[in-house]
Amino acid sequence: MSGNCYQYCFTAAMQEIDAAGVMFFGHLLNRAHLAYESFMSEIGFSLAELLERSRYQLPLVHCEADFLQPIHHGNLVTIEVQLERLGKTSFTLGYRFIGQAGSLLARVRTVHCRIAARGDVPLPLEAPMRAALTPYQVDE
Amino acid sequence: MSGNCYQYCFTAAMQEIDAAGVMFFGHLLNRAHLAYESFMSEIGFSLAELLERSRYQLPLVHCEADFLQPIHHGNLVTIEVQLERLGKTSFTLGYRFIGQAGSLLARVRTVHCRIAARGDVPLPLEAPMRAALTPYQVDE
Amino acid sequence: MSGNCYQYCFTAAMQEIDAAGVMFFGHLLNRAHLAYESFMSEIGFSLAELLERSRYQLPLVHCEADFLQPIHHGNLVTIEVQLERLGKTSFTLGYRFIGQAGSLLARVRTVHCRIAARGDVPLPLEAPMRAALTPYQVDE
Amino acid sequence: MSGNCYQYCFTAAMQEIDAAGVMFFGHLLNRAHLAYESFMSEIGFSLAELLERSRYQLPLVHCEADFLQPIHHGNLVTIEVQLERLGKTSFTLGYRFIGQAGSLLARVRTVHCRIAARGDVPLPLEAPMRAALTPYQVDE
Repeated sequence: MSGNCYQYCFTAAMQEIDAAGVMFFGHLLNRAHLAYESFMSEIGFSLAELLERSRYQLPLVHCEADFLQPIHHGNLVTIEVQLERLGKTSFTLGYRFIGQAGSLLARVRTVHCRIAARGDVPLPLEAPMRAALTPYQVDE
Repeated sequence: MSGNCYQYCFTAAMQEIDAAGVMFFGHLLNRAHLAYESFMSEIGFSLAELLERSRYQLPLVHCEADFLQPIHHGNLVTIEVQLERLGKTSFTLGYRFIGQAGSLLARVRTVHCRIAARGDVPLPLEAPMRAALTPYQVDE
Repeated sequence: MSGNCYQYCFTAAMQEIDAAGVMFFGHLLNRAHLAYESFMSEIGFSLAELLERSRYQLPLVHCEADFLQPIHHGNLVTIEVQLERLGKTSFTLGYRFIGQAGSLLARVRTVHCRIAARGDVPLPLEAPMRAALTPYQVDE
Repeated sequence: MSGNCYQYCFTAAMQEIDAAGVMFFGHLLNRAHLAYESFMSEIGFSLAELLERSRYQLPLVHCEADFLQPIHHGNLVTIEVQLERLGKTSFTLGYRFIGQAGSLLARVRTVHCRIAARGDVPLPLEAPMRAALTPYQVDE
């Protein structure tokens, strides 16, 4: 995988570790969403502004994840965010959780769909959002 | 402490345990709030309905907690909720976290204030809410 | 889908709702895990005991989810847990989030792999666990 | 209040907002703990290392908080951490949540006690930790 990627870093915190001594999958997905929210702000589409203006919604409609290696307390992790697919009314982001030694710890994928502010009619992704996402597309 | 109390039970879950092997204080406070929300429904003041009708707000303005004994994964805990103080515009709830052997594991206190739906003007607690809360008052 | 299922109920709480006014996907996955943990206790495999005895690990290695309809504050939801696949060293659980009117709100799937207590060597699922899981298998 | 303070910044994320449209108090306390953990690393006492070495424990034994103004989605907040009290076997940290316009949004206080690795015997705070904490003491 190459192409531009957006990087979000975090240190696995005490409350993200579970009874098995590793980062809990739900907390890991929460971190993916923090990376998503930070990425969207970076490319000019702050979710807070988008929700406030309420012209449309952008719900997360699907996610999937593979947990390859345990993440422990204090581990420094970099999430690399890339665009995996740009559809007509939705887009798919991929997140690679990379450890300090460069190993791949987890892979997450989220699908976001643009729908009308009220109801659930899918709307085409607007051109400025398409243009903002495209530079982060995975080169295949 | 005696008087009526509302009981909320839970089993400390894998994701509530932290890197130190005990229930994380933030998760413990979340459980106190689940007990609060369940208690309010029980006495006829569902927070979901209250927010939907938006006639007023009931923000949590203060909390404090003492963590006396660690709670471990799988521990069955009962939270006993009581009314500690009924003020003019606010009320104070106390939560006692009790282990299976009857020992006191943690004490939490939350203060809730009634304010206007818009702005932050305190409003007197309405008579029906006072009447619903009073039976749970701590006998001193 | 038919066959036995394990049911876990919850009411969507104030802290599970996000800035978009619907249940956050990470919190929804946490509820799936609470259902999983409760299900495993029900069939005799308490995760707390399993971790304490540490004879082996049972990490969650994959998850995926479809979020079909928004879950709002105060909604009463039933999670139906079933066994979707029983492999040699892993099993796959399916979770159907059902609303009060019977509609399907979300689907979650988690894959759990049995591995040695130290290291990451996959181990065959033990016969008693296979026997305990089998009654919950989806009839196809 | 003056004296050195440690600063930790965050943007209130989608999942930290609750059904009332403001940052949930439990998530706010989690942020205080992230600030605490980051502060401890900064002064040379990484909680992850401390737990791994297990020479002693440093449980959070008390917390209290005042929530003065609502924090909304997308708000940029700075947490200022200071030492409020240095006891013989415990220390008290204060956290001031400051908004972009400089207003005080919330105040949190946590008390941490040094106890033996096994059991719950309080131990005197070690001299290096006292020395590391002292520069952050509030000038009164």
